[in-house]
Amino acid sequence: MCESNAYLKDGENEVMVMESVDSIEPCENGLKLMDIFGKQIFIQARIKDMTLLNHRIILEEICTR
Amino acid sequence: MCESNAYLKDGENEVMVMESVDSIEPCENGLKLMDIFGKQIFIQARIKDMTLLNHRIILEEICTR
Repeated sequence: MCESNAYLKDGENEVMVMESVDSIEPCENGLKLMDIFGKQIFIQARIKDMTLLNHRIILEEICTR
Repeated sequence: MCESNAYLKDGENEVMVMESVDSIEPCENGLKLMDIFGKQIFIQARIKDMTLLNHRIILEEICTR
């Protein structure tokens, strides 16, 4: 299967926020992620980088002041 | 293989800009795409949406004025 896992970068660490991500849709102030089971989450983050062959999507939080 | 094709949305049409995309890295004013062969392109666009199971990454141009 070709889904990826999404990780949120937190300093040096990467915290997995969603497994088996199918779709990503940027929206106001963040991203809507949906996994292969149809579960959706919203996360206040942007895509930092992604490598599909490694099944990794790295996100970073958006700072709102 | 788990790479996707990247399409640039142009009105109603979608024009393929890169096949077999492995990695995407947002950078200033656009995106750096790299395919599985290591070829890189820069495109003045943002991610509109993507569905990995369908191997589709839809981009939209960034208007700079």
